[in-house]
Amino acid sequence: MKHLPDIDPSKLEVTKTTTPKQLVPNQDLVFGRTFTEWTASQGWLAPRIAPYQNLSLDPATCVFHYAFECFEGMKAYKCPKDNSLRLFRPDKNMSRMNGSSARIALPTFDGDALIKLIGEMCKLEERFIPSEKGYSLYLRPTMIGTQRTLGVGPPGSALLYVIASPVGPYYPTGFKAINLEATDYAVRAWPGGVGDKKLGANYAPCIVPQLKAAKRGFHQNLWLFGEEEFITEVGTMNLFVCIKNKETGQKELVTAPIDGTILEGVTRDSVLSLARERLEPQGWKVSERYLRMRDIAEAEKEGRLMEVFGSGTAAIVSPVRNISWKEQMINCGLKETEEAGQITLKMKGWMEGIQYGDEEHPWSFKIP
Amino acid sequence: MKHLPDIDPSKLEVTKTTTPKQLVPNQDLVFGRTFTEWTASQGWLAPRIAPYQNLSLDPATCVFHYAFECFEGMKAYKCPKDNSLRLFRPDKNMSRMNGSSARIALPTFDGDALIKLIGEMCKLEERFIPSEKGYSLYLRPTMIGTQRTLGVGPPGSALLYVIASPVGPYYPTGFKAINLEATDYAVRAWPGGVGDKKLGANYAPCIVPQLKAAKRGFHQNLWLFGEEEFITEVGTMNLFVCIKNKETGQKELVTAPIDGTILEGVTRDSVLSLARERLEPQGWKVSERYLRMRDIAEAEKEGRLMEVFGSGTAAIVSPVRNISWKEQMINCGLKETEEAGQITLKMKGWMEGIQYGDEEHPWSFKIP
Repeated sequence: MKHLPDIDPSKLEVTKTTTPKQLVPNQDLVFGRTFTEWTASQGWLAPRIAPYQNLSLDPATCVFHYAFECFEGMKAYKCPKDNSLRLFRPDKNMSRMNGSSARIALPTFDGDALIKLIGEMCKLEERFIPSEKGYSLYLRPTMIGTQRTLGVGPPGSALLYVIASPVGPYYPTGFKAINLEATDYAVRAWPGGVGDKKLGANYAPCIVPQLKAAKRGFHQNLWLFGEEEFITEVGTMNLFVCIKNKETGQKELVTAPIDGTILEGVTRDSVLSLARERLEPQGWKVSERYLRMRDIAEAEKEGRLMEVFGSGTAAIVSPVRNISWKEQMINCGLKETEEAGQITLKMKGWMEGIQYGDEEHPWSFKIP
Repeated sequence: MKHLPDIDPSKLEVTKTTTPKQLVPNQDLVFGRTFTEWTASQGWLAPRIAPYQNLSLDPATCVFHYAFECFEGMKAYKCPKDNSLRLFRPDKNMSRMNGSSARIALPTFDGDALIKLIGEMCKLEERFIPSEKGYSLYLRPTMIGTQRTLGVGPPGSALLYVIASPVGPYYPTGFKAINLEATDYAVRAWPGGVGDKKLGANYAPCIVPQLKAAKRGFHQNLWLFGEEEFITEVGTMNLFVCIKNKETGQKELVTAPIDGTILEGVTRDSVLSLARERLEPQGWKVSERYLRMRDIAEAEKEGRLMEVFGSGTAAIVSPVRNISWKEQMINCGLKETEEAGQITLKMKGWMEGIQYGDEEHPWSFKIP
């Protein structure tokens, strides 16, 4: 097989906008676009950075019909100490994105090359990133199949692009604990499926259960799996449970194991690592294991359920107040006057400390 | 809630192309486009028929990120007797499409209105449809979410469009039996999932297993389910098995039941109806029931496996020669010199007779 070009940052072409946007950080403002095209015969073409603009695609393009699409969510931060721009574990996003694209027959690419291009774009858009904790530039690497065909087969061409949007703090006035509804009538993912990949395909089917939960007053729904009703994830977040052992009273931080039915969150992995490094010495046990809804319900009744939180790129951690399950309302351990538990607060502090460069850490990638 | 407009064919606007395409029927030639847009605040806007052209979409459009997309496959036929244009059970496609769109929070629509618009487009493109058996105009109704947002939520706007492509016979030189590989390492669908809906999300994840089967010399892969390895479907076709009962010798036509894990094929439903009407009087039993791979393997060994075929819009029926399963090669009943079994041949004849109007039948919808 002929060796085809991978992404080559040295061939980057930059077209700056002639109508620069005003400095109004706003979650709806999307701008900037770095992109590179791929064809089966030529490999990855020269990358470009260009002003934000529409894509022009044939209505028979395979992304519209067969969901040839995958994405990543990541953020660029500005360090208040030295004004350096930083990414958080971008290598994890790149390897996950390559895993996603390979699973749906889209091309893979050199992750370091894309990190370099993202860095160039961040530098260009630097003025949109305040050096204040909570603010960042949200980055959305996206890959779509662009072949014009109604035939169901591997795409012969693809577009890889990154768009950016300045975002403020997820909880501008401090944490607000959320309420979840456990979903028992629909299933998000299953063994042998693609629920562990960041594919568009995993998202559209989640909306109706989310809307149903919202109608009943819940912020999100919690996906269960199997007759045992194992806790999996929240669709846009992984879930962590702090629980005391029935027999020993041992404090344990538990999240669902990587078995193909949950997204392999970068924040999930970071929370686990930090917990192993910083909570285990304080007597905690850290576990990736199955937890059933009835285990949580039982722990609540026995006063052993300490704290529950979601983890994801948007909010880092999201405290959970209640989970509704089978006519029961499980109180996850927060007092009425509290919006977040101790572990949730600690995790947010540790994570932000690393993301914004207060603490020098190998996870914080300084854009050169 | 305010009553919002549904699709209104009386508001149809037609723009004819100024550069008509040459009469070269070709499966790659895609043209014609009828479309209507929807917004959450205005409902369905006035429909239009316009020359084939690209769509211009923001890179943050939700169809690119979260797979808000569903489609249908159908055909328009020209009746050799009276040159009338006909659709085959278009109401089935419309109700399935509404089921698909509702499942992913896209808007639903008046199916009869869309059938009317499709009819208008077919009349405009009539010269591309030869009145010869096997030829038809392939129609691809497609709905995509068009809201420009990276937020994971219900799309506030959508585009419903239909594109068309003239197609010739699927088997131009007569049937060619295909070989299938049973897939045991990946799972297409799950109870409580969306495998029964015609969503883009169900297609991209099927390609890699298909390619793996192709590398080993198979035309398609056959999706199994569960530890019992129930036969489900072929990804682009439903599957029918003709088998003799072990005890009684009773001939039985079997296909997987509608349980959420198989697409509810229009051709599948038609084959079942025709079999009940025309094969049962000849002594056949017609069943929608679970069949395990080992049931087929056993039937082959005991000389009870008569015939296997797939069913779908593209080929109507596709005869199967072999199924590879766990180091076994199951011969599905065809002689070396045969390319299709008796039931497969009969079904094709019956279906085409109805589709092309040889036989007047309520399934054949004459475009007025």
